[in-house]
Amino acid sequence: MRKVAESTVRRLSLYLRFLEEFEGQGVATVSSGALASRGGTTSAQVRKDLSFFGSFGKRGLGYPVPELADRLRQILGLKRRYRVALIGAGKIGSALVQYRGFRQRGFDIVAIFDTDPAKVGRQWNGLTILDIADLEREVSRQTIDMAVLVTPADAAQAVADRIVALGVKAILNFAPVQLAVPDDVVVKTVNLALELETLSYALANR
Amino acid sequence: MRKVAESTVRRLSLYLRFLEEFEGQGVATVSSGALASRGGTTSAQVRKDLSFFGSFGKRGLGYPVPELADRLRQILGLKRRYRVALIGAGKIGSALVQYRGFRQRGFDIVAIFDTDPAKVGRQWNGLTILDIADLEREVSRQTIDMAVLVTPADAAQAVADRIVALGVKAILNFAPVQLAVPDDVVVKTVNLALELETLSYALANR
Repeated sequence: MRKVAESTVRRLSLYLRFLEEFEGQGVATVSSGALASRGGTTSAQVRKDLSFFGSFGKRGLGYPVPELADRLRQILGLKRRYRVALIGAGKIGSALVQYRGFRQRGFDIVAIFDTDPAKVGRQWNGLTILDIADLEREVSRQTIDMAVLVTPADAAQAVADRIVALGVKAILNFAPVQLAVPDDVVVKTVNLALELETLSYALANR
Repeated sequence: MRKVAESTVRRLSLYLRFLEEFEGQGVATVSSGALASRGGTTSAQVRKDLSFFGSFGKRGLGYPVPELADRLRQILGLKRRYRVALIGAGKIGSALVQYRGFRQRGFDIVAIFDTDPAKVGRQWNGLTILDIADLEREVSRQTIDMAVLVTPADAAQAVADRIVALGVKAILNFAPVQLAVPDDVVVKTVNLALELETLSYALANR
């Protein structure tokens, strides 16, 4: 498969959301224009994005909704569920555990770790917060597909190293650092202050 | 000024973080290679990113740390503080209000709104949660530079329309919808489930 830009993958996710709404309404076909409006883009971009993955739809008839949705789920790796470990039981971790959007899309937080003795042993959403010292023991005894890292900046790399050593291949990182990981591990860093800086940049350079 | 890609702006934010650590340590100059390692990129990319904004540093001597940091703050619009309204006092809103990263970078949450009568009137971080019905009155009586939207999907567009009508030009949107706004308003959407989907895509297509 050709290398696909992250911006394309993000638009595919948005198209899928739109298709699923249409599926729920029993709509059979959708135009590239309608998908474009959802993805904040153009019909030409939609056709280009989808062309990476083969041929869909018939000219003038639009895209068949259930088939395209199913194909996008397959492309995005969403035809299965993922077991996710949350590392860091702070405020953001608490919000993430209760975030319905994860479970709806197939991402189940199944383990929570923290270093703070005051937090270890507490129940969050039916899960007992575990001591990070037990990370290796716990992760080796159940399958973990992904880790969500919400640690302080100075702890993140060491925790990432331990997770990677346990065979976890995907990390969503909220710590404000760039993690170094082997080539076969994928890391996506979310930095909330940095998101605001893209806004301040836009305001300062309009 | 030339149109600069968002990916460039994001790297500038990362370079600035690194420069500020160096400033704190009293380091006078830094190489493009060192900045590259922080931004997860190459020396050539660093030089290219900075070249958008003029000439920095001397060949072989590296970049002067305080000057470059100051210039990046200027470029990123970080030489001032921003007054931010939080709309939606749920779990993610709660985490954001307490997120130190915002204040550290110059973003002060100064007003919180919600629709829920059980939440309106409560104190969060010294701020009283206000009724969204009073949005117009409250926002017109103080300066609001940015809004952070953490509403349910089906409420987000209507709230965005009201914020835009009040003259707010920048929105950080956590609702899982694509907002329609006028051309002079900048919106950045953060969709946490979508971040995990970029990981599932990578796992499914490795």
